[in-house]
Amino acid sequence: MSAAAIARRGDPVESIDTPALVVDLDAMERNLATMAAFARQHRVRLRPHAKMHKSAAIARLQMAAGAVGVCVQKTSEAEALAAAGVGDIYISNEVIDRAKLERVAALAAGVRLAIAVDSLVGVERLAAAMARTGQAIDVFVEVDVGHGRCGVAPAAAGELAQQVVAHAPPEGGLRFAGLQAYHGAAQHVRSVAEREAAAHHAAAQARAAQAAIGALGIACPLVTGAGTGTFAFDVASGVWGELQAGSYLFMDRDYADNDVASAAPRFEHALFVKSRVVSRGAAHAVIDAGHKSHAIDSGPPRLWQRRGTWANGGDEHGIVRPEAGGDASTLPALGDTVWLVPGHCDPTVNLHDRYVVVRGGLATGVVEAVWPIEARGCVA
Amino acid sequence: MSAAAIARRGDPVESIDTPALVVDLDAMERNLATMAAFARQHRVRLRPHAKMHKSAAIARLQMAAGAVGVCVQKTSEAEALAAAGVGDIYISNEVIDRAKLERVAALAAGVRLAIAVDSLVGVERLAAAMARTGQAIDVFVEVDVGHGRCGVAPAAAGELAQQVVAHAPPEGGLRFAGLQAYHGAAQHVRSVAEREAAAHHAAAQARAAQAAIGALGIACPLVTGAGTGTFAFDVASGVWGELQAGSYLFMDRDYADNDVASAAPRFEHALFVKSRVVSRGAAHAVIDAGHKSHAIDSGPPRLWQRRGTWANGGDEHGIVRPEAGGDASTLPALGDTVWLVPGHCDPTVNLHDRYVVVRGGLATGVVEAVWPIEARGCVA
Repeated sequence: MSAAAIARRGDPVESIDTPALVVDLDAMERNLATMAAFARQHRVRLRPHAKMHKSAAIARLQMAAGAVGVCVQKTSEAEALAAAGVGDIYISNEVIDRAKLERVAALAAGVRLAIAVDSLVGVERLAAAMARTGQAIDVFVEVDVGHGRCGVAPAAAGELAQQVVAHAPPEGGLRFAGLQAYHGAAQHVRSVAEREAAAHHAAAQARAAQAAIGALGIACPLVTGAGTGTFAFDVASGVWGELQAGSYLFMDRDYADNDVASAAPRFEHALFVKSRVVSRGAAHAVIDAGHKSHAIDSGPPRLWQRRGTWANGGDEHGIVRPEAGGDASTLPALGDTVWLVPGHCDPTVNLHDRYVVVRGGLATGVVEAVWPIEARGCVA
Repeated sequence: MSAAAIARRGDPVESIDTPALVVDLDAMERNLATMAAFARQHRVRLRPHAKMHKSAAIARLQMAAGAVGVCVQKTSEAEALAAAGVGDIYISNEVIDRAKLERVAALAAGVRLAIAVDSLVGVERLAAAMARTGQAIDVFVEVDVGHGRCGVAPAAAGELAQQVVAHAPPEGGLRFAGLQAYHGAAQHVRSVAEREAAAHHAAAQARAAQAAIGALGIACPLVTGAGTGTFAFDVASGVWGELQAGSYLFMDRDYADNDVASAAPRFEHALFVKSRVVSRGAAHAVIDAGHKSHAIDSGPPRLWQRRGTWANGGDEHGIVRPEAGGDASTLPALGDTVWLVPGHCDPTVNLHDRYVVVRGGLATGVVEAVWPIEARGCVA
């Protein structure tokens, strides 16, 4: 459907069609400023993960506030954001297919581009693709710092860095840029002490990888990584020079469920799904947003400033019931608006073509803009 | 990214970019023919649910095989399919917002349109919108036959039907068309006996609603509903005159996990996500498809014709490990293709912009077409 059918600039919030993905711009700007100030204060680079927001407008706001560029996970995300004018992009992930590496190399002609590697095959194929275009690319060696997904063991980082350096300019197109070190599994450990312990483990692993590289006489310019759950610990470790946190900007229900140390920066919910009650039973209300409107991989959404519990009603519906001890008088009426805080912002954003951006709050605000989500669906 | 970057007609399967949503056209055609033959044999109408496939090309194939039209859940889905030439569409869901009902009324000028209602407010607002355009629409009264989501209680169906009939042509624009009766929660009950019992309960509820309508002297032309899990029971009950099953065409892992009676029609997996190994550990392989490429709301995908287990690797990754008792020698190598059978086809389709349609099987076939998914993302 057309953007105009959802909302137009100047519309009151009430008239936004449902379901819609809505950004509380005031809250988002406060989150943006908080993280930018934190990075400045601690003298670390900020390269937020655009896999979360997939939007060139938001990438530009982040870079205007001091971010050096953005991360993405996919070649097609990088292509979409580059086409929309984002000029500094890091694909913080492995690409192994030769045809896709040709696209990576082509993209490096137009933007400052970086990529991660974790295998000799990956290095050699990347070097071959870059050689054919004559372009250069920054290359981070990914090290597994605890997640158990991609990345080499710390002890193997030196050898892989050496293989990258073997393709250095001017003969080759690979600029060794440092280490990719992200402990995804640590981000949602709820207790501060346990999350800090996981972050300490990751820091020790990253230091070991730095040592393995240094032992071969290779300089390691940067360690990049960190997420919204661990960035304060990661900075305190002194290991990371660049933060990739993304979710801080929108703060989903899953991150809000983390305990946070009293001195750490705090972020507000800034991303919502606006829904509407389309059916009422005696003891439940049915809203028009199901898990095609908000992702449930990381648990349920939370009702925003409204009593009641949420239950999965399938692809296109959600079911609202009274809280324990509550009665049906607390339920929203037929036609009422119900705001949801998504359980997980990244895959929720990926379900929508655009953000409806609201100034002045969800209750009485107006639509300030409708932003396209350029990299929506860019999974390849 | 462009369609051409994913696949072109005539390409071998091996060259399809990953991740990609791939249809095994031979299998899909067999599923299509099996369900069409079943409907013909049992003299019931088939109106498959296009919320599953969201594609005008597939809707046309279904209608060419005898389907009377398609169902959708959302006004914007109906708009997208109508714009792509589908001429008979049933919104099997409630719409309560006045602005959206204006769009429903406008759409009825161009296609044969039907909609469901389950409230007096819904009937009155729909009637008002239709009156302003002078168009007519088929209206089904939704009855809750066991799911506990939308729909009135059977005993209340007569009164609501009467309110629809009060807006009948030529003065009004509402043609009372019968009952919407779908027991979603019954579809994935695994055991045949328990699923049949749930279907029997739904049939009893639908009969009670028919009786309530008949008691008011109103004819009930049709009961529409049923899904891939229960359609054979629903037909056997004699209550349903129209089947809305959708998933039969693609058969996801969740439906394949149902036990099926020996005499019931069988369907094959016809929808797959093609992925590739982008990282290898000593005891695991990482593929480039995560839950932004296939939905996990109804459980994990299944590895297709390959040993190993799947684990969630996040938004952009999946993790393949050896089966219990297996060793790493059974794992796919770096760069290998891994095919996934999605856990749930509907929300998986909704993550992709297009189907890559393959003739001749996944191993050695070629790309026959690339079909747009016109209603992808149409949640409103």
